[in-house]
Amino acid sequence: MNEIVTTPWHLTAPSFEEIGEAASRIRGVLVKTPLLESERLNARLGGRLLVKAEGLQRTGSFKARGAWNRLSLLSAEERARGVVAFSSGNHAQAVAWTGRRLGIGTVVIAMPADAPAAKIERTRGWGAEVVLYDRATEDRETLGHRLAEERNLILVPPYDDRRVIAGAGTLGLEVAQQAAAMGATPEALLVCCAGGGLTAGCALALETVLPGARVFAVEPEGFDDTTRSLAAGKRLGNAPGTTSICDAVLAPMPGALTFSINAPRLGGGLVVSDAEALAAMRVALEEFGLVVEPGGAVALAAALSERLPIAGHTVAVALTGANVDPGIYQRALFLST
Amino acid sequence: MNEIVTTPWHLTAPSFEEIGEAASRIRGVLVKTPLLESERLNARLGGRLLVKAEGLQRTGSFKARGAWNRLSLLSAEERARGVVAFSSGNHAQAVAWTGRRLGIGTVVIAMPADAPAAKIERTRGWGAEVVLYDRATEDRETLGHRLAEERNLILVPPYDDRRVIAGAGTLGLEVAQQAAAMGATPEALLVCCAGGGLTAGCALALETVLPGARVFAVEPEGFDDTTRSLAAGKRLGNAPGTTSICDAVLAPMPGALTFSINAPRLGGGLVVSDAEALAAMRVALEEFGLVVEPGGAVALAAALSERLPIAGHTVAVALTGANVDPGIYQRALFLST
Repeated sequence: MNEIVTTPWHLTAPSFEEIGEAASRIRGVLVKTPLLESERLNARLGGRLLVKAEGLQRTGSFKARGAWNRLSLLSAEERARGVVAFSSGNHAQAVAWTGRRLGIGTVVIAMPADAPAAKIERTRGWGAEVVLYDRATEDRETLGHRLAEERNLILVPPYDDRRVIAGAGTLGLEVAQQAAAMGATPEALLVCCAGGGLTAGCALALETVLPGARVFAVEPEGFDDTTRSLAAGKRLGNAPGTTSICDAVLAPMPGALTFSINAPRLGGGLVVSDAEALAAMRVALEEFGLVVEPGGAVALAAALSERLPIAGHTVAVALTGANVDPGIYQRALFLST
Repeated sequence: MNEIVTTPWHLTAPSFEEIGEAASRIRGVLVKTPLLESERLNARLGGRLLVKAEGLQRTGSFKARGAWNRLSLLSAEERARGVVAFSSGNHAQAVAWTGRRLGIGTVVIAMPADAPAAKIERTRGWGAEVVLYDRATEDRETLGHRLAEERNLILVPPYDDRRVIAGAGTLGLEVAQQAAAMGATPEALLVCCAGGGLTAGCALALETVLPGARVFAVEPEGFDDTTRSLAAGKRLGNAPGTTSICDAVLAPMPGALTFSINAPRLGGGLVVSDAEALAAMRVALEEFGLVVEPGGAVALAAALSERLPIAGHTVAVALTGANVDPGIYQRALFLST
């Protein structure tokens, strides 16, 4: 007798309608971050580069979109139980902030002990209980599941959840709408990629509203799991022990759900060095007056390094996070060259 | 026999309708900069602080609003003649950028020789001819008028012009609309003040759309001409030889037109120190991920220093410019404390 194995609902792809519903949910709560451009950059690249300033989002990163959508959909009973998440810092702050805004009493966040101090402090500042773990010896997913089990909490995954992906997809929806209002039709959208949730959400949004555009996943060197997985047609992990300044985008391997969405849809993966991320942070400061954290700058870095031909094309990139310690920002921008 | 002296049309106040027309003109060309807030700041101040991120505007400051509105209204004959402006840097870039976008062949800008290098370079980058002058020995208005006369150019004043003021007023209009969308009703709007054009435009916009709100002019120490003039009921100048890091807001005295608009309408003037402006620049970085130049930070500085009571109130401030040399930004933020 065969057992029928069904994938749980939350581990299947959201519909386009769910992304639209997420957009309605965040309206008036989250920031419709502007889509900017610089004619100086356009002239330098010979094309048109549209830059989504998502570091201006609540809690300083795109993660607020997925967190708000997921937590808004909790039942009253689930809210009463509380939530747990694991994150290097941006999903942490997003879940903690949303939890407080929605009046969820218990919010527990597992964070790596080497996460930026400002991210840990701000997560605590929103009233969350932070549990620190060792990135080298402990598995964050196991820890998250154990905390959920032991304390009867709802686990809010950083990417492998259809409601989180639908929330992230609202960024792609906004880019398409804002580009149209500027008379621009992006042929590509470049976004940072760790677990692949933002990539997946944007790919699902654009295949309906901007079917001529392809989404690319941008990763830092040493953490190019999605790029290699897309090429191999199966999920591959990163070598252990690698480091990068791009703390926000260091996932061990692509998510199962996100990879199943991304594999047939993405234009591919692009890989940038830490030095290129730093150069992009400087350009964001000089051309847009925007502070960007290293992980939030990788998509712009890929465009500036012309990993993809920009000349003669219209390309959108997302600056996805601004959560950088001022001291690290100073070192990164001014002392590294 | 009495001679009837009439004020030229362009030196009289714009109507509210003209501000609305300016808003239509800039739509799709300039950036609808976001109105942001930080719950951490709100908690610290005990009130609600709304922050208009106008450094994200084209050319990095609110000056693009007035320049675009004024230059759009030139006749074909005037466009063919060309324009001249005098400015320490932000109006310069705005006029140069707008001139290029509108296909105006001749754009001449008189700038002080001690203006930030990046501002001079960028003004030239938009194709303008820059004429440098000595701030201590030459009068910029006289120079501007002479250049206009000698070369048959249209003078585009930085503030004393009803079309420039109407353009600047669109910022106030947007703040009112965006605050309403956030469920907020500002009781005050704080903006930086040099010649008084932004202050005047916002005061005219808000008296119609948000009549319960009062506009305050914020100035750096040593350049508090509007604050003292409002108190005295007549235009007073600043003492010569004073300096401030707030290069964007160092006008010699209030404009005749702007003061006539501001005197009966403003809530008053507020004065901040260079150190307070620097502290506000740090807060903009840490809380919003925004780069702000010193002169663009004075309104936020006034709010943070509680020159006006914020506790229990809703107050909006404009971060009006982001044009800072990276080297100066580094020194300002990291080496001054």
